[in-house]
Amino acid sequence: MLRLFSRNFLNNLFVRFFSLFRKFSESEKEILSFLKKKLGFSPNNIKYYRRAFRHKSAAGKTEEGFKRSNERLEYLGDAVLDAVIADYLLHYYPNEHEGFLTKMRSKIVSRSHMNSLAVTLGIDKIVKVKLGDADKQETINGNALEAFIGAVYMDKGYEFSKSVIIQKILKKHINMHELQSIDTDFKSKVIEWAQGNKKGIHFETEEKTISDDLSTFQTSVYIDGKIWGCGEGSSKKKAEQQAAEEGCKHLFID
Amino acid sequence: MLRLFSRNFLNNLFVRFFSLFRKFSESEKEILSFLKKKLGFSPNNIKYYRRAFRHKSAAGKTEEGFKRSNERLEYLGDAVLDAVIADYLLHYYPNEHEGFLTKMRSKIVSRSHMNSLAVTLGIDKIVKVKLGDADKQETINGNALEAFIGAVYMDKGYEFSKSVIIQKILKKHINMHELQSIDTDFKSKVIEWAQGNKKGIHFETEEKTISDDLSTFQTSVYIDGKIWGCGEGSSKKKAEQQAAEEGCKHLFID
Repeated sequence: MLRLFSRNFLNNLFVRFFSLFRKFSESEKEILSFLKKKLGFSPNNIKYYRRAFRHKSAAGKTEEGFKRSNERLEYLGDAVLDAVIADYLLHYYPNEHEGFLTKMRSKIVSRSHMNSLAVTLGIDKIVKVKLGDADKQETINGNALEAFIGAVYMDKGYEFSKSVIIQKILKKHINMHELQSIDTDFKSKVIEWAQGNKKGIHFETEEKTISDDLSTFQTSVYIDGKIWGCGEGSSKKKAEQQAAEEGCKHLFID
Repeated sequence: MLRLFSRNFLNNLFVRFFSLFRKFSESEKEILSFLKKKLGFSPNNIKYYRRAFRHKSAAGKTEEGFKRSNERLEYLGDAVLDAVIADYLLHYYPNEHEGFLTKMRSKIVSRSHMNSLAVTLGIDKIVKVKLGDADKQETINGNALEAFIGAVYMDKGYEFSKSVIIQKILKKHINMHELQSIDTDFKSKVIEWAQGNKKGIHFETEEKTISDDLSTFQTSVYIDGKIWGCGEGSSKKKAEQQAAEEGCKHLFID
C-alpha cells in the first residue's frame, strides 16, 4: 500500500514538474480551464481528458491503425457512472425496491438527460468534432460526458470520480424529486409521434399461458402496418410499454 | 483523508472488538468460512454478507413491510462488476475497439456464466432459499454472486472489491482466450432450438433507406408464424442476430 502510494506520488510529482516547462496547446488550456472552473480540480495527466473530448470524427490513427477517439473511455465512464449512481441511489432511497432504483438510474443516464447535462456543464464547447450535423452533435455531447468520467477514473481513481459525479453533477444539476415525478410513458410518446406525423398506429397483444397461475404478454407496436417494436411482460401494460420503448428507440423519438 | 482513515480504522476496530464477544450463528459461521477459505478475507461487518446470501423467498420483512432480501445488493453489485470488468478489459486489450470490449464483458456477465461461476465458488451451498424449483435455483446463484459483490463494496469499498473480482474471480476462474473464442451466435441457437422442438422458423428482413448512402435493416424472427423477436442494425446479419437474441431471451434459450 505504502509502496503503491509512493510510486503514484512520485509519478504525479514527475508529471507535474515537467508540465511546468511545457507549453500547453490552446485546446489543452481550454480543458484545464474547464476542469478548474467547472469541476474545481487540476488533472494529474491531461492526456486522458484530451482523449475524452475527441469524437471519432476528429481522431487520428496510431501506427497500428487504431483510432485515438473517446469511445473506449466512454465505455469505461458509462460503467463507472452506473456504479456511482447505484451507490448514491441506494443511500438516497434506503427503503426503495431495486426496480425503482433501476428506473431512477435509467432516467438520470437517459440519452436526452446526459446530452442536456453535458451542455449545462459546457462540454459542447470543448469537444472536438468534425461533423456538421446538428442532430448528431447532441449524442456526441452526452457521450463525451461519459468519456470524461472515464478519464477522471483513469487519472484519479474511483473515489475521486465518485466525488466529482456526486458533488459536481448529481447534487448540483439534478433535482431528484423532479426526476422522480417524470413518468417515462413510452406508449403516449409513440402515439403522439405517430399522430403528429400522420401515421397509423396500433398495438397487438397476445397472452401466453406459462402455468395455471402464470401468464406473460407479448405486444407488438405497428406503425403504418409495419412492426417497429416488440415487448414482453407480466402485464399487458408492461409489454406495451416495452414495445413502445423499442419503437421510440428505432424511430429516434426522444 | 487522514481523518477518514482514522474514523474507518476506529470503526473497524470497534466492530471487530465487539465481535469477539458475540456468538455467531451457524449460517454466519458458514459465511465467515466461505470468505476466509475461498476469498482470503474477513469481513468488517457480516450483516452485508448475510443479506447478500438471502434470496427473497427466504427474506423476512421490516416493520415498514420492506423485504430484507439480496435484491438491492444485487443491483449494486451488478454495476460494480460492470465497472471493474470494463477497467480490467481496457487494460487487458489495449488496442481493441469498445464494441469488442462490450461483447467480452457480456460473455463474462451472461446469466449462464454467472450461475456457473457462483457454483464454482460454492455460493450455491450458502445461499438461503425457500424454493424447490431446480431451474430457478440457477439464476438465484448468479444473482447471489452479484449481491455478494455489492456486499464487498459496501463493507470494504471499491478498490477492495476490484481486487477480489480481479484476483479471486477473473484471474482464477476465467480463461479469457477461451471466452474470446466462444461465438455467441444467437441465430444458430434459435434455429437449433426450433428444429429440436419441431417448430417452423423464419426470418424476415426489410431494408430502410435513411439517406443515399445509409440504410438500416429490420428483422423479425417468426416461430410457428408468430413474432418472437425484432432487431435492427446497419447490416442484415446484425439485425438478424439482434432479433435472434431477443427471441432466445423470450423463449428462455440459454
